[in-house]
Amino acid sequence: MADEAAKLDEALRRQGDTVRRLKQEKASPEEVAEQVAKLLELKAQLGTEEGKHKFVLKTPKGTRDYNPKQMAIREKVFNIIISTFKRHGAEVIDTPVFELKETLTGKYGEDSKLIYDLKDQGGELLSLRYDLTVPFARYLAMNKITNIKRYHIAKVYRRDNPAMTRGRYREFYQCDFDIAGQFDPMIPDAECLKIVHEILSGLQIGDFLIKVNDRRILDGMFAVCGVPDSKFRTICSTVDKLDKATWEDVKSEMVGEKGLSREAADRIGEYVQLHGGLGLTEQLLQDTKLSQNKLAREGLGDMKLLFEYLTLFGIADKISFDLSLARGLDYYTGVIYEAILLQPRNAHKEEPVSVGSVAGGGRYDGLVGMFDPKGRKVPCVGVSIGIERIFSIMEQKVEASEEKIRTTETQVLVAAAQKKLLEDRLKLISELWDSGIKAEMLYKKNPKLLNQLQYCEDTGIPLVAIIGEQELKDGVVKLRVVATREEIDVRRENLVEEIKRRTCQP
Amino acid sequence: MADEAAKLDEALRRQGDTVRRLKQEKASPEEVAEQVAKLLELKAQLGTEEGKHKFVLKTPKGTRDYNPKQMAIREKVFNIIISTFKRHGAEVIDTPVFELKETLTGKYGEDSKLIYDLKDQGGELLSLRYDLTVPFARYLAMNKITNIKRYHIAKVYRRDNPAMTRGRYREFYQCDFDIAGQFDPMIPDAECLKIVHEILSGLQIGDFLIKVNDRRILDGMFAVCGVPDSKFRTICSTVDKLDKATWEDVKSEMVGEKGLSREAADRIGEYVQLHGGLGLTEQLLQDTKLSQNKLAREGLGDMKLLFEYLTLFGIADKISFDLSLARGLDYYTGVIYEAILLQPRNAHKEEPVSVGSVAGGGRYDGLVGMFDPKGRKVPCVGVSIGIERIFSIMEQKVEASEEKIRTTETQVLVAAAQKKLLEDRLKLISELWDSGIKAEMLYKKNPKLLNQLQYCEDTGIPLVAIIGEQELKDGVVKLRVVATREEIDVRRENLVEEIKRRTCQP
Repeated sequence: MADEAAKLDEALRRQGDTVRRLKQEKASPEEVAEQVAKLLELKAQLGTEEGKHKFVLKTPKGTRDYNPKQMAIREKVFNIIISTFKRHGAEVIDTPVFELKETLTGKYGEDSKLIYDLKDQGGELLSLRYDLTVPFARYLAMNKITNIKRYHIAKVYRRDNPAMTRGRYREFYQCDFDIAGQFDPMIPDAECLKIVHEILSGLQIGDFLIKVNDRRILDGMFAVCGVPDSKFRTICSTVDKLDKATWEDVKSEMVGEKGLSREAADRIGEYVQLHGGLGLTEQLLQDTKLSQNKLAREGLGDMKLLFEYLTLFGIADKISFDLSLARGLDYYTGVIYEAILLQPRNAHKEEPVSVGSVAGGGRYDGLVGMFDPKGRKVPCVGVSIGIERIFSIMEQKVEASEEKIRTTETQVLVAAAQKKLLEDRLKLISELWDSGIKAEMLYKKNPKLLNQLQYCEDTGIPLVAIIGEQELKDGVVKLRVVATREEIDVRRENLVEEIKRRTCQP
Repeated sequence: MADEAAKLDEALRRQGDTVRRLKQEKASPEEVAEQVAKLLELKAQLGTEEGKHKFVLKTPKGTRDYNPKQMAIREKVFNIIISTFKRHGAEVIDTPVFELKETLTGKYGEDSKLIYDLKDQGGELLSLRYDLTVPFARYLAMNKITNIKRYHIAKVYRRDNPAMTRGRYREFYQCDFDIAGQFDPMIPDAECLKIVHEILSGLQIGDFLIKVNDRRILDGMFAVCGVPDSKFRTICSTVDKLDKATWEDVKSEMVGEKGLSREAADRIGEYVQLHGGLGLTEQLLQDTKLSQNKLAREGLGDMKLLFEYLTLFGIADKISFDLSLARGLDYYTGVIYEAILLQPRNAHKEEPVSVGSVAGGGRYDGLVGMFDPKGRKVPCVGVSIGIERIFSIMEQKVEASEEKIRTTETQVLVAAAQKKLLEDRLKLISELWDSGIKAEMLYKKNPKLLNQLQYCEDTGIPLVAIIGEQELKDGVVKLRVVATREEIDVRRENLVEEIKRRTCQP
């Protein structure tokens, strides 16, 4: 369609030239008039073409609407996540969708280019939040809070290449839980992993694995492998690609783009293939090279402690100490982790959802200090659940099961058996609403009873309260159970009670 | 502070001039050196000044964070609103926070200048949503939906002059309920007003009044008052200011800025002071001028019908047919309404919150057709609850009452009576979490019992599960009721049951 318009545009340009040429050449008025008429026709055509294309009916790239069925699934997922956060005693906060641009500056390393900026319309320069962690740190510094356990569920924005079938969007939810404060080592860190474990178990979306590592172990490893200090962060970004790329590709980026020596890269290569549990922490604490590095020793000691706590929580079997885990963001300072699904539930289907990481996080002890005027640090550790990928899986699971999802909670439809009862229906439904009953009626003066019953079938409303002239005279309402077609007369004053009893809602 | 920096800047500029002049004049090296030293000192000062101002720790203008206490109040408000929407059988949808810029173009009349645009970073031109109504209409057209009753609660964005103490923000929540579809007249319209009534009653924030009018009555009134067709919308915008401005000011805008004749303005002035109920609709249907206008007649007929339905709903006494109500937005085509609070609850306080409209809406039968490629119309009517003003009132009410709001739901704190019991605490709390108990513990290796009890006092946790060496040996846990200081030994296998029983959570 755009091609059509371009062709027309070109034709119009040429016709314009022709008319100008004829006028310059002082051609006969008839000849000019003929060509001008052609020109006007083309212009009219282009106008229509433009009219047609002017309006594209879509959501912005990388975003989507949620319809009522999707919202029902989303609410189910949120409920599991929120109840887990609350079970761990978290408070909840909210922050604006945009921040001062400078608040986000220098926090995301190479990912900063993905930040959405707002147009400069006068006043402050603003950007859409890229995650919930930086706004949280800004909130702590701004309010001088040194101690909080909070969750925050909200949308974040990244100008990434969307892969929507795999649940990767430009607008997506993050569900964050963080613990801020000066505490004894690894106790809050272990709780974050327990929370990820509880949520992924609760969602019942298949087996999962939580990889853990520590930035101090990575930095120590880089040091003993001969990476110059100045290259720690950028080499860390490259290691982070190991979940998607092969070691060969990662190595060639290290050596080629990042200018690391081939020997250093090879030494890194040996470490990053290691993964295990408590045993690996003990093995590496004996590693002659690594154990000489102070940072690595600290990280390994804490990793050992972490695994002891995870064992007490009974979840150590799902956790893998993995030296290839690096995490992209700049602000991590200690333990880092990432949860991946091992076998998507619908693996038997032809096209299984390919999902990446569904949760991630770590310790960031320096971030709040970056916002504090005096640089006062507040140690933090947290986890972020990526709802979109989980949601994609849940959605496919529901579709595959042909489970019928109700999108409303309506308990009863107020219906009329005869014509001219609109006013009586309005009165009855008003009584029900005022008593807390979830009730609907058709917005027609004289709906057919069959249509009213069909509406209940379609939407899953379990009960129909039917009034006719006889019922009105007798002071009763005919209550029909949609599933069984059973009908009983209920005295009007008992109707609310009876509906509550039958729909099990107190 | 900015002034300070500007002064320094100026001083620096002058000092630079002085140094240059001295050099040109070949002054003595000592003299130059002295002035250069001064220059460097100023530069250093400015550097510090700039350093200080470089980072402003704040949320963007017109926005705010919600702390846990505020979130608790906000959730309470949301629960009342959502349960009302659900009681009326609404489904829920969600749309992206931004839309294609062109989706918002031409929908908001004079308010369009308040739309936030995103920066052009390549790709589509985007704007933050200004309300939830236009995205809803876009959603209906895009998905060819002709029939839905949905709610949508989300933040919208307006580059307005914030008045945050009065609950007016640049980022704020709207809670929208809309009914789309071709139905018999005024039945869905009446339900929208019933919903506003239920919500404002449920929130218990004092007496309120819902003003109603109809765009057709307004247009008819403009016609019979001698307003030219082309000026209907702009005069409508001016009438809309009557809630804040006097009639004299409004008239002078009509005559001065908008170029309306003084006579026409005076005729409008007579109508817009009218307000009443069913009686007024009947009176105006007899009005010799107004009743001759077809649009006005239609509007008045529907208004009469609306009041009949509102009477059946038992809410007519809170509704006022008010000819001065105009509503700013372009897209309304029929009935319009706006709810205002009459006596803020805290009127006895020194500085009462001055609140404006807390809900508004109306019928917009043409909006969906603006998005449909074939212009197919879907009649819609809806209402939007403005949560921020309500929230401001609720917040002040809570503060005034000194009611203590809990920000977590934690049922029990797992505590130790002696040192070296961290591992036992971790094991016990893990058992409780896995049984669905909301539990916390202090993140310390060896917390003092007093500190643990104090934490419960501070945060409102009702129970403490205390373990000591004796309890561990006996297979019991000491359960302490914080309020009464009562302590009982509970066998470990009965602990979950006992906590559930005592915190009334099944």
